[in-house]
Formats: sequence, C-alpha cells, structure tokens
Amino acid sequence: MKKIIILGSGNVATNLSIALKQKGYNIIQIWSNKIENAKALANKIGCPHTNSLEKLLYADLHILAIKDDAIKDILDKLPDIKVVHTSGSIGIEVFENKFTYYGIFYPLQTFNKTINISFDKIPICIESNKISFQNDLIEIGNKLSEKVILLTSKQREKLHIAAVFACNFSNHMYAIADNILSEVNIDFKLLFPLIDETVNKIKYNRPDHVQTGPAKRNDQKVITSHIKNISNYKTKEIYKLISNSIIKKNDHP
Amino acid sequence: MKKIIILGSGNVATNLSIALKQKGYNIIQIWSNKIENAKALANKIGCPHTNSLEKLLYADLHILAIKDDAIKDILDKLPDIKVVHTSGSIGIEVFENKFTYYGIFYPLQTFNKTINISFDKIPICIESNKISFQNDLIEIGNKLSEKVILLTSKQREKLHIAAVFACNFSNHMYAIADNILSEVNIDFKLLFPLIDETVNKIKYNRPDHVQTGPAKRNDQKVITSHIKNISNYKTKEIYKLISNSIIKKNDHP
Repeated sequence: MKKIIILGSGNVATNLSIALKQKGYNIIQIWSNKIENAKALANKIGCPHTNSLEKLLYADLHILAIKDDAIKDILDKLPDIKVVHTSGSIGIEVFENKFTYYGIFYPLQTFNKTINISFDKIPICIESNKISFQNDLIEIGNKLSEKVILLTSKQREKLHIAAVFACNFSNHMYAIADNILSEVNIDFKLLFPLIDETVNKIKYNRPDHVQTGPAKRNDQKVITSHIKNISNYKTKEIYKLISNSIIKKNDHP
Repeated sequence: MKKIIILGSGNVATNLSIALKQKGYNIIQIWSNKIENAKALANKIGCPHTNSLEKLLYADLHILAIKDDAIKDILDKLPDIKVVHTSGSIGIEVFENKFTYYGIFYPLQTFNKTINISFDKIPICIESNKISFQNDLIEIGNKLSEKVILLTSKQREKLHIAAVFACNFSNHMYAIADNILSEVNIDFKLLFPLIDETVNKIKYNRPDHVQTGPAKRNDQKVITSHIKNISNYKTKEIYKLISNSIIKKNDHP
C-alpha cells in the first residue's frame, strides 16, 4: 500500500490518520464534506485536502471514516477504487456490485478528536471480498496494532452492539452517577476506586459471576428506597429496568 | 479503640475484618447468624466466634456488617453497646432511642469474600451522633485509608445510588456485552482496551462530555439495526431505554 486517502475528518478519521502517518504510511489527501474540517485534519497530517469527490487523487487505498448513515451516499458517488469503511454496523454488502476490491477496517475503540490514543492494543477487525486485498489490510493492521482479527459482518455487528453496552452505556451509567452526586455536593472522583475495582474484577472473572449490589441480593427494601430517592423520572426508569434484569438473571441462572 | 467485634461474615465483614487485623486492631469475636460462616471468618482472623447475640463479649466497638434488611432486627436484640453499621442505604435514625454511641462506617467499594483488596484508596464514609465517638471512627478510618469523609445519611444514600449506577449497573452492561459476544464466538477480552479507555476518559472529563456512540450521534439507522439484531427481549428494552436517555440529554443539554 503506497498511497492512502482518508475520507472523513471526525474522531475515527483523525485518530486513524495520525496513527497511519506515525507508522510511515503516505497519506496523500484528506476529503471531507466540510472544507474547514478537511483542512484542519490535512494540516495535522501535512497533506492536501478537498471537499470535492471529483478532485480525489489516485491512491492504493481509500479509507471511508464517516458517519454510518452517510456511507452509502458517498459510495454511490465514487468510481471503482480500492475502498474500506471503518464502521462497526455497516455490512460488507454496502459495497457490492460497484467495487472490485473492498472491505472493512474497523478499529474497536472510542475515539475523540481531541484525545490522541495509541493504536497498539486496539483490536482491528478486518473483512474483505478478495484475499489479496484482505492481506494488504491485515498488513496495515499489524503495523498499527498487536491485535488484528478477521470478522464477518454478522460478527462485527454483534461486536458493535456489545461495545455499545460495554462502553457507551457504561459511560452513561457514570454520567447518571455524576448527576446524582452533584445533587448532594459530592465529588464524582470519590467513585474512582469503586469504578477501577469493578473493571479490575472483570479482567479475571466473567462479569455475571462478580455482579454485586441490591439487585443481585434481591434486596427489595434498598431497591424501593433507592427508587423513592431518585429525583429524575428517566433515571428511576433505568434503575428499575436494570435492577429487574439483574434479579431475573439470578432467578434463571 | 481497643477491642472490636464484627457482626457479620459476608463480603464486607470479611474484607473489613482482615484489613482491621492487618492494621493491628484487636478483633476479639465474630458473630454470624450461621455458625459455620462465623467460624470460617473467625478462623481467618484467629479469634473466637458465636452465633448467639447473648454470648457477645465486651468490646469498645461493634461493627454490624450484615444485609441491610437484617440491620433493624439485630439492633433490636442488642444492649446499649457502641455500634456502627456499614451500609450505604440505612440512615442513622435506625439507631435512635436505643443506643448512646452509634454511627456509620461505610467503605465505598465492591467487596467479594474471595478477593482480598487493599483499603488504602477506599473512601470511608463516617457519620455519628457524638463527636467523641465520631473522632474514634475517623481515627480507625485514617488507619485503613487515605480517604476518610464525613457524610450525612442523605448524602450517603445518594452516594450509594450513584455507586449502584457506576458499579453494579456498569457491571451488568459488561455482562450483557459478554452474552452478546458469546452468541458469535467472540472473546469478551476483545473489549478490554475499549473498557479501559472508557474509564480512562472519565478520569479527566465529566462522563457526559465524553459520551460517544450511536445514541450520542442520534444515528437512528444504527440504533434501529442494533435493536433488530439483539436477540434477547430484555436486552432490547435496556438498549432502547438507555439510548433514549442519551438522546434526550443531547436535546436538553
């Protein structure tokens, strides 16, 4: 793979461009729908940028790192180039009958434009329609990360759903905890040892086996008191539903 | 505080007894409703045990580390001793009109009998009806941990609710992720870098400010596809409710 073009300028595009460049890959162009975003990322990489798909240069690989719901639209406007997307949710069939070499290059991580993180430990999930192209993608994956795996679209979609629970939803649990504590002027940092230990435990045990708390004990007195004491209606509903889910798991192990 | 008696033999009682003994406190007796549990913990500590409240020895402090819904019953059977409970949820009023010196000694952590953890970083939350007794409790807290704080019962209850979200519920999110991955033969360990980064981000940012994922982007295409692809009905309901909660937070920041 000699020349790479990145289409996109968001959290994934930014982190991936920087990591590829650090590993010596030649990123020759950044495309983004919004010219100022394309420019901002191109400045970080030190390469040309464009917001016109017609001005795309020739490249050996095009990495489409854009919002899931824009992928199909953009693909429809591209010629028969070698292309991958970086989405957990969009199946490989999105490329069918239009491209000769295509695939998925999905880094399993939560990215943020403003936080540069190392790709060393990030699982890179790869799928392709052609073995030769797949091998090219594996080679790039191996340069970036210790953990490159082949996944089917079905596996990748399930992995993405699991990631939503393990990352996005656990973060929302932290956000709710933060809100509750601010009602009584307690610093959210007080929870850090507890959060660390919760994560530490699942490194050596199945999460189900180390579940603790009032719902695990089916302690209805505490559960009722908690529900009464939660001020926010939506938070109450979440408390009830997750508690019930934990209790039912106990009933039917 | 010279002599301490532990009432209880569960996760908190076990970890707290071991930590107190390690710091040189003289644990003179373990009481538990079930004699074999009392014996098991007493063997670890090297002290006598009993399952009879009438055979309690004289002590300077009695630590009641039992299930929340048993606290009142046990207190009703005790004479006017110096006593604390270790519960996040039970208010200080449970002791009223019965004891002269009482309080709460609540270590904010998820404990497991079979996992010994250090108390160094665990916040110890203290409340008492008497300044002198409160100072005794603070002294013990300071021996065990770097982080001792005074909290009212109201603050402690909110802290406990927040802890349920941050610990018990995030663990349940991991358990759901684990289940989903086992459907497609993917190792749960693949999510570790993602889980670590999720926790890492909230160390330096408010959780709300680093929320990511389909619900944060209000990406209805992905959300609909995820809901369709979740096999378990209960898991579907949780996915919908939490996604809606994240989406609504976006609408009304």
